[in-house]
Amino acid sequence: MKQYLTIDEWSIIEESFDPQTQEISESVFSLGNGFMGGRANFEEQYSGSSLQGSYMAGVYYPDKTRVGWWKNGYPEYFAKVLNSTNWIGINIDIEGIPLDLAKCTVSDFRRVLNMKEGTLSRCFTATLEDGKEVKVESIRFVSMTRQEIGAIRYSIIPVNFSGKITITPYLDGDVKNKDSNYDEKFWNEVEKQAGTEGGHLTLKTKKLDFHVTSAMAFDILVNGEKVNADAEAIEQEKYVASKMNVSVQSGDQIVVYKYVANVTSRNHGLGQLVDAAQTALQAAKEAGFVTLLTEQIEAWREKWKESDIIIEGDVSAQQAIRFNIFQLNQTYNGEDDRLNIGPKGFTGEKYGGSTYWDTEAYCVPFYLSTADSSIARNLLIYRYKHLEKAKENARKLGFAKGALYPMVTMNGEECHNEWEITFEEIHRNGAIAYAIYNYVNYTGDKAYLGQYGLEVLVEISRFWEERVHYANRKDKYVMLGVTGPNEYENNVNNNWYTNRMASWTMEYTLEALDYLKKNESTRYAELVDKLGLQESETAKWNDIIAKIYYPADEELGIFLQQDGFLDKEIIQVKDLAAENLPLNQKWSWDRILRSCFIKQADVLQGLYFLGDRYDLDTKKRNFDFYEPITVHESSLSPCIHSILASELGYKDKAYEMYLRTSRLDLDNYNNDTEDGLHSTSMAGTWMSIVHGFGGLRVHDGRLTLSPSNPGHWTAYSFKIMFRGSRLKVSVSDAQVTVTNETDIPASITIYDKEYTVNGLSSITADSNSITV
Amino acid sequence: MKQYLTIDEWSIIEESFDPQTQEISESVFSLGNGFMGGRANFEEQYSGSSLQGSYMAGVYYPDKTRVGWWKNGYPEYFAKVLNSTNWIGINIDIEGIPLDLAKCTVSDFRRVLNMKEGTLSRCFTATLEDGKEVKVESIRFVSMTRQEIGAIRYSIIPVNFSGKITITPYLDGDVKNKDSNYDEKFWNEVEKQAGTEGGHLTLKTKKLDFHVTSAMAFDILVNGEKVNADAEAIEQEKYVASKMNVSVQSGDQIVVYKYVANVTSRNHGLGQLVDAAQTALQAAKEAGFVTLLTEQIEAWREKWKESDIIIEGDVSAQQAIRFNIFQLNQTYNGEDDRLNIGPKGFTGEKYGGSTYWDTEAYCVPFYLSTADSSIARNLLIYRYKHLEKAKENARKLGFAKGALYPMVTMNGEECHNEWEITFEEIHRNGAIAYAIYNYVNYTGDKAYLGQYGLEVLVEISRFWEERVHYANRKDKYVMLGVTGPNEYENNVNNNWYTNRMASWTMEYTLEALDYLKKNESTRYAELVDKLGLQESETAKWNDIIAKIYYPADEELGIFLQQDGFLDKEIIQVKDLAAENLPLNQKWSWDRILRSCFIKQADVLQGLYFLGDRYDLDTKKRNFDFYEPITVHESSLSPCIHSILASELGYKDKAYEMYLRTSRLDLDNYNNDTEDGLHSTSMAGTWMSIVHGFGGLRVHDGRLTLSPSNPGHWTAYSFKIMFRGSRLKVSVSDAQVTVTNETDIPASITIYDKEYTVNGLSSITADSNSITV
Repeated sequence: MKQYLTIDEWSIIEESFDPQTQEISESVFSLGNGFMGGRANFEEQYSGSSLQGSYMAGVYYPDKTRVGWWKNGYPEYFAKVLNSTNWIGINIDIEGIPLDLAKCTVSDFRRVLNMKEGTLSRCFTATLEDGKEVKVESIRFVSMTRQEIGAIRYSIIPVNFSGKITITPYLDGDVKNKDSNYDEKFWNEVEKQAGTEGGHLTLKTKKLDFHVTSAMAFDILVNGEKVNADAEAIEQEKYVASKMNVSVQSGDQIVVYKYVANVTSRNHGLGQLVDAAQTALQAAKEAGFVTLLTEQIEAWREKWKESDIIIEGDVSAQQAIRFNIFQLNQTYNGEDDRLNIGPKGFTGEKYGGSTYWDTEAYCVPFYLSTADSSIARNLLIYRYKHLEKAKENARKLGFAKGALYPMVTMNGEECHNEWEITFEEIHRNGAIAYAIYNYVNYTGDKAYLGQYGLEVLVEISRFWEERVHYANRKDKYVMLGVTGPNEYENNVNNNWYTNRMASWTMEYTLEALDYLKKNESTRYAELVDKLGLQESETAKWNDIIAKIYYPADEELGIFLQQDGFLDKEIIQVKDLAAENLPLNQKWSWDRILRSCFIKQADVLQGLYFLGDRYDLDTKKRNFDFYEPITVHESSLSPCIHSILASELGYKDKAYEMYLRTSRLDLDNYNNDTEDGLHSTSMAGTWMSIVHGFGGLRVHDGRLTLSPSNPGHWTAYSFKIMFRGSRLKVSVSDAQVTVTNETDIPASITIYDKEYTVNGLSSITADSNSITV
Repeated sequence: MKQYLTIDEWSIIEESFDPQTQEISESVFSLGNGFMGGRANFEEQYSGSSLQGSYMAGVYYPDKTRVGWWKNGYPEYFAKVLNSTNWIGINIDIEGIPLDLAKCTVSDFRRVLNMKEGTLSRCFTATLEDGKEVKVESIRFVSMTRQEIGAIRYSIIPVNFSGKITITPYLDGDVKNKDSNYDEKFWNEVEKQAGTEGGHLTLKTKKLDFHVTSAMAFDILVNGEKVNADAEAIEQEKYVASKMNVSVQSGDQIVVYKYVANVTSRNHGLGQLVDAAQTALQAAKEAGFVTLLTEQIEAWREKWKESDIIIEGDVSAQQAIRFNIFQLNQTYNGEDDRLNIGPKGFTGEKYGGSTYWDTEAYCVPFYLSTADSSIARNLLIYRYKHLEKAKENARKLGFAKGALYPMVTMNGEECHNEWEITFEEIHRNGAIAYAIYNYVNYTGDKAYLGQYGLEVLVEISRFWEERVHYANRKDKYVMLGVTGPNEYENNVNNNWYTNRMASWTMEYTLEALDYLKKNESTRYAELVDKLGLQESETAKWNDIIAKIYYPADEELGIFLQQDGFLDKEIIQVKDLAAENLPLNQKWSWDRILRSCFIKQADVLQGLYFLGDRYDLDTKKRNFDFYEPITVHESSLSPCIHSILASELGYKDKAYEMYLRTSRLDLDNYNNDTEDGLHSTSMAGTWMSIVHGFGGLRVHDGRLTLSPSNPGHWTAYSFKIMFRGSRLKVSVSDAQVTVTNETDIPASITIYDKEYTVNGLSSITADSNSITV
């Protein structure tokens, strides 16, 4: 953990150049717009350590799986987020010597991620080995309004010499995934053309036939005057460039504007790709850099209006929460229901695949509260569209009916192949059911059940029905051989969380059936018919709900993570010598598995999801037992603990956990930020504030808040959208103010007291009424 | 399962050529001599499906491991049995057309593995596409007396034409392992020389620097007259050959004698390899083919004298048991204590590594009874030499003391990397301790304890001590997160077998300490000092022995395979529809793990090992519960069940299980013989007869027999060596005769009655006294 970034309310700032932290910065300063994005690589050549990465959403590669010993049911491939054409490149040569920060003396370096406006800028002075000095300033962005467009302004001033500067904007498709299992390159060239004022390049993936066309155009100005003329077109394997020599005097300013359109066969016909790219590109170039930038600033202003959180009295916390919100908005915009939220967004390749249970458990609540409800709905429909594949997956594992959603996927097929995860970490099915409940409960959109939700619920309930079995000796239904959210145990019997979410799914499915029967009888009949739903099935679900086994310990008054948990040696993390941590780097897998130490919330995850069904005492006993043995080595862990700690009035613990989640990447807490950001866990940070400190819950259609101040801030505020209204909740030590920024009135409960907040007005509640 | 081999008492015979079964035959007809060996590939070129395989014992390659997700403690490499120079090759061209059985019409084909004499022979008539007909006869062997020598006699008669036949004996080192993880070749060329009368080739492995030199010499005779003269020397990358054109008349007989010496840097200095090869080669060539063959026949006569089993009235069973004994003797001869018994011997590459717990659990009993005790002792010393590596392995997994032997190894280091096996299948440690007990008990060589045995026992006991922990709630020591012998469950708690073998190890270690203290007090003191053994440790072992947890079910009166076993749905194999079997091909891994079905003996393995501690009723209750839910999908399973069934008087079950183990490869029972033979399980077949039907046990230094006739044989006999004497035990329905073939008298108990068999004489016991 090394803190080298400057604290600022709205920006991430790096004040000097250090090759040691370059790959971390490449992750942190990443740009994206939900459609494409990439790491903060330099425009000019760079020979130091770097992970060059440009990614197009939904363009992936089914890389051949690598496992030691094959077992029946394993997926054939592992879907990789595909590194695609590097479109930001502008090589600079000074009198034949490449400008390369790994080989210069660099001064006055400053890199800024302007989160308010959505731009990445950089300036530096470089002194080459021969003493020539240049001053460079660059700014680039990935357009939020024109999803296929990226734009760069790159300025060079020769400080102490006159001579020839060679400028080569290029598109380079000869790229490789760092995590390619067999060192293979995944792209073939389809066609290309380099010209004097730009060029284009079309590649296709070796499998699945994804096509991506990148087209670039540029203008070069010297002291404001255009000088494109004498460019040399260069074509190489999967590469196009235009090379220009510019003669300059000391003090002249050369400015390169590079515009790029990246289009894919996901959105255009194969024959139309070059046209589509050229059309988008020409429109962008005609609009010009300043107009594009203005659009960008305006688009981000709108995003922030919906989702900003303001923290007063703690700039570090302020920066952190904005960074999390900014990255989430860069990663996913909800406009394309074929897309989802990859664990690293557009910031790296690790983990592969695009969709984990992170989406349902962590991201859906964020998008529900900070964007139009259609966004969260699209995330749900994504799973609905994968229902047939999830049914196939269950068949593949030998289940006669039901659906098992994959642990990791791109297209609905499973693409992860550790048996203890793929085959056993089946609680993901519960989170997918829970997201439907969460969406309907939050939005009130019960029509969703008849349209899409019920089918998913029934097929998941059917899976649970077959996955449990009746154990004579216990006179209970048991579920053997599962891995819970805590991946530091696996192949355990009766994981409380999984059993609980399984029976909860059946309960909610029955409730949804009941609702439809009473309120949408025609649709109900259609669905019963389509699903072939039998009375014997619902009867069985009721029997399972009544008789499922929940491991618990009466003496401690806690639920047991799994059958044998108390046979383990229980040691608290505080009693472990520091050199043992993090366990996943210091201990063998064997030792981790046998220990009591927990990677992320497990029983507590269930108490958070089903919080309205358990009283504070129960939550407290379980929290007091489990949190002290939890090492939080998943980025998804601290947020849930922060939320529960807030609810239990454990202010210090809540704040400690909040810090751990909020600055995870900015402070490189887990020593792995260079691989990319922990995008999905950023939603957890948001939850720590809004569900945790803010105490947001929705019960029976009513929004409830129980705000507390973590005690380190003067005040804080967050925005939430709820059933058409947008509310700004401001919390200080003295009071809670809720301002309705829309003209739709909102009903709200604050500390158990009911309020109506009329359109464009505020109400204030006394924060002393806080109960814990 | 396809039976295409002819039943014969002493030979394996294939009567016609079928490309479909070629790879199975290549495995079944393999040759070896404990030092080198290879598959029954053809001498001449063959373009059909084939697994070309030549192997040198102890020459391996640390191939880069392939796993999906790395975990701490995983080994860096997976040791591959290394496919090395193909030295059997003799290409034949008929007027420029290669003789290739995949492209000819083949008649009168016959391939014979003569187990009595240790030779592989083949004859056939081939009609080429152009109608030319040749009659070929070949015979080859790997010398049992000159371990580095192989010899081939290859005869060709042109039947219906006169013309030119080109003969090219060669050495080809440009070979690849079929199971290479990254399609890599593992050899580099060091030097080579091709000449007109032979040549040599030295290769070294890309890692570890193993050198292997192969040298060949040959004679070519036409109608008995030598014609080597005009050979053309050919050198290519990792390849030497000598090519000769021979002009022949229809009916002439061309005979090629090819002699090869293969020497390795394991036995010779790097600078001496070529000399060593040439010396051995010239001696062999001078001795000549007939002398070498005579030596071979004599050597095998000696082997059979020690280890033959005769079955009367069942030629199929007779062939099968000889095949098993033959292959075991080909695989390992016990002369080199750096070697061990690979699961596929010299017959294939699958599984990699050379040493599994198979050695201690299955092979040691075979070698103890059929060879000089120094052979089994060498197998034990092999582990003693790996003790430091086993201690390192335990440290790597986080244990403060003790030794954990690897699951799979070549040099003492772990080279298997499924966590549920490598980290959890720790019962192997128990088998290694048990082999010491078994050896000392069988041979009476108690001096072994002070020399080697005790150190291994103490370090294994220390491992168990740390691996269990005291569980307050149970007031017992428990062992969590293990995989028992039944690999169809893993990461279970309190596997009865593992807990039992752990406490047994501690008991035996204490007994050995006590013996040494009383009988070898100086050595005892030395060892206590060397090991740093504390009284607190032995006290702890006593406490664990007293308080270890043995899962059991009182109602059923059985030991439980693991804590949660009875929560599983118990279904018998007979109630499974046939299409479900074999489970490992038909079911997902998930379904297998959650089922009750057992791959191989687990609780029953313990009841076999510790058979003198449990009464027949206990064995019966456990057998009656576990055998019906066992699918025997490990080649190591049927033999243990056959032995226990014999003991329990379940004659039909014993015979059923015997058949399943004895003809496993000959009848390709598991559809995988083409990968190589199940060499280690062949020792289990031997045990089924000698320990099963013969009822051999050793209690308190006395050899005990309780022979029964499985009911399908007229009579049977087996040989056992015991404390210097060699006894032939002949069993018929009426009586048991024990003949002492040595002049050392033997004490023996038959059906609870004591006998002394004087040197070179016999005793007879009435087999009606059989009790079950």
